[in-house]
Amino acid sequence: MRLADHTTTTAAEALESVDVAVVPVGSTEQHGPALPLGTDFITADAFAEAVTDRDDVAVLPTIPVGVSEHHRQFHGTLWVSPETFEEYVTETIEAVASHGVRKAVFVNGHGGNVNALERAARRLRGDGTAFAPTWNWWESVPELSDDLFDSDGGHAGPAETSLLLELAASLVREDALEEAGDGVPESWGKSVHGASVGFDTIDFTPTGVVGDPTEGSRVAGEELFQAASEELNALVDWLVDKPFDSLRSTDHV
Amino acid sequence: MRLADHTTTTAAEALESVDVAVVPVGSTEQHGPALPLGTDFITADAFAEAVTDRDDVAVLPTIPVGVSEHHRQFHGTLWVSPETFEEYVTETIEAVASHGVRKAVFVNGHGGNVNALERAARRLRGDGTAFAPTWNWWESVPELSDDLFDSDGGHAGPAETSLLLELAASLVREDALEEAGDGVPESWGKSVHGASVGFDTIDFTPTGVVGDPTEGSRVAGEELFQAASEELNALVDWLVDKPFDSLRSTDHV
Amino acid sequence: MRLADHTTTTAAEALESVDVAVVPVGSTEQHGPALPLGTDFITADAFAEAVTDRDDVAVLPTIPVGVSEHHRQFHGTLWVSPETFEEYVTETIEAVASHGVRKAVFVNGHGGNVNALERAARRLRGDGTAFAPTWNWWESVPELSDDLFDSDGGHAGPAETSLLLELAASLVREDALEEAGDGVPESWGKSVHGASVGFDTIDFTPTGVVGDPTEGSRVAGEELFQAASEELNALVDWLVDKPFDSLRSTDHV
Amino acid sequence: MRLADHTTTTAAEALESVDVAVVPVGSTEQHGPALPLGTDFITADAFAEAVTDRDDVAVLPTIPVGVSEHHRQFHGTLWVSPETFEEYVTETIEAVASHGVRKAVFVNGHGGNVNALERAARRLRGDGTAFAPTWNWWESVPELSDDLFDSDGGHAGPAETSLLLELAASLVREDALEEAGDGVPESWGKSVHGASVGFDTIDFTPTGVVGDPTEGSRVAGEELFQAASEELNALVDWLVDKPFDSLRSTDHV
Amino acid sequence: MRLADHTTTTAAEALESVDVAVVPVGSTEQHGPALPLGTDFITADAFAEAVTDRDDVAVLPTIPVGVSEHHRQFHGTLWVSPETFEEYVTETIEAVASHGVRKAVFVNGHGGNVNALERAARRLRGDGTAFAPTWNWWESVPELSDDLFDSDGGHAGPAETSLLLELAASLVREDALEEAGDGVPESWGKSVHGASVGFDTIDFTPTGVVGDPTEGSRVAGEELFQAASEELNALVDWLVDKPFDSLRSTDHV
Amino acid sequence: MRLADHTTTTAAEALESVDVAVVPVGSTEQHGPALPLGTDFITADAFAEAVTDRDDVAVLPTIPVGVSEHHRQFHGTLWVSPETFEEYVTETIEAVASHGVRKAVFVNGHGGNVNALERAARRLRGDGTAFAPTWNWWESVPELSDDLFDSDGGHAGPAETSLLLELAASLVREDALEEAGDGVPESWGKSVHGASVGFDTIDFTPTGVVGDPTEGSRVAGEELFQAASEELNALVDWLVDKPFDSLRSTDHV
Repeated sequence: MRLADHTTTTAAEALESVDVAVVPVGSTEQHGPALPLGTDFITADAFAEAVTDRDDVAVLPTIPVGVSEHHRQFHGTLWVSPETFEEYVTETIEAVASHGVRKAVFVNGHGGNVNALERAARRLRGDGTAFAPTWNWWESVPELSDDLFDSDGGHAGPAETSLLLELAASLVREDALEEAGDGVPESWGKSVHGASVGFDTIDFTPTGVVGDPTEGSRVAGEELFQAASEELNALVDWLVDKPFDSLRSTDHV
Repeated sequence: MRLADHTTTTAAEALESVDVAVVPVGSTEQHGPALPLGTDFITADAFAEAVTDRDDVAVLPTIPVGVSEHHRQFHGTLWVSPETFEEYVTETIEAVASHGVRKAVFVNGHGGNVNALERAARRLRGDGTAFAPTWNWWESVPELSDDLFDSDGGHAGPAETSLLLELAASLVREDALEEAGDGVPESWGKSVHGASVGFDTIDFTPTGVVGDPTEGSRVAGEELFQAASEELNALVDWLVDKPFDSLRSTDHV
Repeated sequence: MRLADHTTTTAAEALESVDVAVVPVGSTEQHGPALPLGTDFITADAFAEAVTDRDDVAVLPTIPVGVSEHHRQFHGTLWVSPETFEEYVTETIEAVASHGVRKAVFVNGHGGNVNALERAARRLRGDGTAFAPTWNWWESVPELSDDLFDSDGGHAGPAETSLLLELAASLVREDALEEAGDGVPESWGKSVHGASVGFDTIDFTPTGVVGDPTEGSRVAGEELFQAASEELNALVDWLVDKPFDSLRSTDHV
Repeated sequence: MRLADHTTTTAAEALESVDVAVVPVGSTEQHGPALPLGTDFITADAFAEAVTDRDDVAVLPTIPVGVSEHHRQFHGTLWVSPETFEEYVTETIEAVASHGVRKAVFVNGHGGNVNALERAARRLRGDGTAFAPTWNWWESVPELSDDLFDSDGGHAGPAETSLLLELAASLVREDALEEAGDGVPESWGKSVHGASVGFDTIDFTPTGVVGDPTEGSRVAGEELFQAASEELNALVDWLVDKPFDSLRSTDHV
Repeated sequence: MRLADHTTTTAAEALESVDVAVVPVGSTEQHGPALPLGTDFITADAFAEAVTDRDDVAVLPTIPVGVSEHHRQFHGTLWVSPETFEEYVTETIEAVASHGVRKAVFVNGHGGNVNALERAARRLRGDGTAFAPTWNWWESVPELSDDLFDSDGGHAGPAETSLLLELAASLVREDALEEAGDGVPESWGKSVHGASVGFDTIDFTPTGVVGDPTEGSRVAGEELFQAASEELNALVDWLVDKPFDSLRSTDHV
Repeated sequence: MRLADHTTTTAAEALESVDVAVVPVGSTEQHGPALPLGTDFITADAFAEAVTDRDDVAVLPTIPVGVSEHHRQFHGTLWVSPETFEEYVTETIEAVASHGVRKAVFVNGHGGNVNALERAARRLRGDGTAFAPTWNWWESVPELSDDLFDSDGGHAGPAETSLLLELAASLVREDALEEAGDGVPESWGKSVHGASVGFDTIDFTPTGVVGDPTEGSRVAGEELFQAASEELNALVDWLVDKPFDSLRSTDHV
């Protein structure tokens, strides 16, 4: 069910069968010349949609601005600090837990959010409020991604391009995909003798893109979306099956 | 224009003509038995939509969870602390200002957000980052509201009920409007000898509603929406006309 | 009783019959050319004095600097941030609660303090420490104020002018009252199409005053003071009558 | 001059000749069975009064609650955290500095405030806002104190008892002085093999007193008050003579 | 040079030729039954030692407690929060930068520190204070590690075991290596359908170890240490060669 | 025992007999032309070493950067803010307390750390986590110091010079001792009419030294070290003897 569509009265009843809150979290940030700034919340939103018809799931509204300062040099990128993002998502989970839903999944569309989400989840588990792991769609189907594309899934690379063609084709500037991949690296970051020195995206990619976006296709996007959606459903099944107490922090040995 | 629909490249060009960022901010919170939990972001969203086709406006994604702890006893209410909300919106405006858009309007659907938004706006103006006042739709057309309804516009009262009937009728449980208004007060809060002692909504309304929702109608909603949308457009015009320097903090006398 | 006049030993005994702590909170800020910078703590102090001879009340020392940044452009205004003020008053109440006095009233002389006081009170109630509403004298006798003056009570307007003439006439520059009211607005703030754009007092009043101060008189001040003092006494009575548990936060429905 | 007695208009003129802001800071805390809880702000207030008629001084309102958690076990003690107190005084000085008064003295009545005041002063000097040392009356006349009393000045000991007899005799319970000094230590704190283990006053004094209060007298109080007041005046003279730039932080060698 | 061995006078001269500060950062945390709790600062220390004789390097004292809460269930683990660790290292770099050394390397012995170090480095670069990337020894020689061991380098696995045998053999309990590797996973963490659910080490390894420690040897340790030390030297060379301005954050496109 | 030398398995057993954690805390800061920047952690380290062979003591790694901003104008000084230092040490004690060791001693080499350590200790005692007083070597043998030297022990004065000659003679530049004491004051700080105005060391000593370092000698250092080490052992004995509950905060009277 979608929480915000309910009134407080119908929510009272619907929440009785809900076991897992799903919180889509994205970002509004550059995705190169061809993909929309909203890419990461569009994907998060779409994956959350894939579990919305479950009675044991409450999908919360999508949080659209994330940890993206490293994209700030590119026009249109929005960001908040990791601390603010962590607080925002932590308190949102605390709220839903106050209504009795103490398992949650962050359905995440943006790699930059991961550390903050993990700190949030650690706090929530640590004080016994909730068990709230992060689900990153790109980590749920790594082999498929390898099968589909020669290059790395990347940032605004073939995987995201494919997904957007599937989910929001009207927002993809297909004629810019060639330019998007021009002179970009195969993988994220920049390393010198074991030290990571690529602080900002602009330090290692001229267009903001990583991976070859021209490899993307709607067909690949459909396949990725289906496969990853199944993984998300399986994750929710796993969470539903686990008693909450079995998910708590382990005691000192 | 809608920022998130642009790629970074097309945003670069489009932002050149943008003068005002519009940030819809709402809440996910109880609106009594008849209106959806998403009421406040649905209205914020809809009003922002009313200025989306302007080239001098960039509409940002909607921020869906706000300052609503005082509704926490009712099922489904989400909230973050005033401090976290203030940070989240302040940093979002700082980001958009970094791309050259230094006037903004918070298009706000929730009274509980107002103080935090005003603190944010004060900071942003104080350090010269941006001029970002808050526009509350219900304050833009007070006379119309008085004309349309006998009771106060309220919370989940006749004004919001009317707007929702206009904007998202499928989410309104019209058969629950009667029950929603049962035993509720005419106006917000609870005062004892000059001291406000209504800390939480539940302290002064049994259903979570203030004002008589049965007074609401789709026709009234349409009228409210049109009138307030015109006010918002007029506010944007006013901002566009003002040179940024004329909006800065005044110096010491 | 006045807490600070007691020794710890006599306080031990006196506190046994005390049910309500009274904390006068004011500000040191511009009140136009005619009223002293100390206006808001002078009034808070005087109202607290009106309940000092009650055995069931402990009056704490007056907190003299408040949330007044919006008056900063006028000479002599002092201020602290809302966060600092909130902390200062919250911790003061926590201290008095540690001695067994868990009901309190902020006797407040300054509108700018209200939001911070309400956040403090929410925290104190939320964690079960104390019930500490804010009493604003101007909200305790709104009809009387309307009866006495044609214009709004205002800031440094007729109501405060009257009170100061009653309470501290030697600090009122009566010959400046005319100048004080020159070109000032009837009511607080500045609104454009539903958006509040009067961030600082100086944005909407040239002298720092709101309302017509020449309407003020010692006689009106005496009347205001008596009437509001009675309201404060009635509020204390109400608090004394309420069992502490009946004032706690309500549970989830 | 006393700042709060001025209107903003007369303050504008008076502040032109002011060179030093004087901020009385005290505490509301146990001073044993014989002295009032307000002892520390009463003394701070009185010393500030001693420089009020200087045109080059602006006396600010007295800050009455300080860093006194270590007295919390005794009835009536109020306190805020060191961080909150530091913020409150720092921001107050920032405010007065914004009106052009960039030298200040904290006239301090309470030893527990010293560390927080010093951190505040370091910040204010470090960022170039103000030079704001702390004046502790008991450190201005150490030899006189040694001459007047056999025992240490102490806490609620002979020095404070004498001052209170001079400044607020009606609040001193002289018949309790004997009991106050019963079984109390000669000096502050408790040390074990070089480690300070006296965290709270109650850890080392049964009545809350340190030093023999029966040694106190009004005559000694008068002498102390005169001598220390002269020192404060001399400090203000010293500050007035120093160009502000000569008081700034020194550069790196 | 080692900074702490200098007096301030000799440091003044020596710092003139220093271009890069090296800050060893480790942790005190469980490394299974066979390796000492100090493993991570011992390795950090040793690698820093490898560049100590360079005149263009100042080695700072080793920071011994890091971000290790996820090992807390095992005896002896110490930790601070990520925020505290980030502050501690950030301020340390700010201090050394105040003496003119604005390039730095965190020589890091602990994976759990990485995110906090990267946030610190981002802040330091963002405000123009310093360029301070993190060097993780295990990321400087990944191929060698793959060549030397069948299993992953791991936590307290073959790579760390080898290094400790080389650097501090007396602290390795070689007779416990077998037990250490009993039932442990090949790689870090625990993933369910794309979600990381291994919050604490104890969630996925019974002994606290990851990777097979019995593969470790002193010879492998020597090889790893030499190879990685060369990489660190090469990184320092790279930093020395880069003008500071070329390392600053890039401007908006 | 030294905690970091143990594996988690041997620590489990060893910690059973441990009653007191010893945390050496120092600073890296100017000690004039003759003593090393590491003086304060070298001494802290050495004193901690003196109790390392006790089975009832766990010595933690040395924390090398402390509260030394007031020395910042001298080359090589490192520092963190008091708040950061307080957090770092508080959390470290919380960690060791989680393994059952709830008494601790900060073996402190630096006067500037004292206030932050005391705030940390107050918090740790206040919430029942641990009893963790600070041991300052110079306060454990004040009479001996007076006997040995004509001048005050000072900063980089005769006491520290003597200790360093005993503990790390190779780092002492004996030929610079004369210069070090040139024109320096006998005691710490600078006072004007009862106000402390010596914010930074450089405000009152040209070389960074206080007290006459030429009075120092290895023999005196040996005597100081032995005597103070005995005091530390005696303090540990005292702590071991005290039941933890007898060290908790006292209740309200």
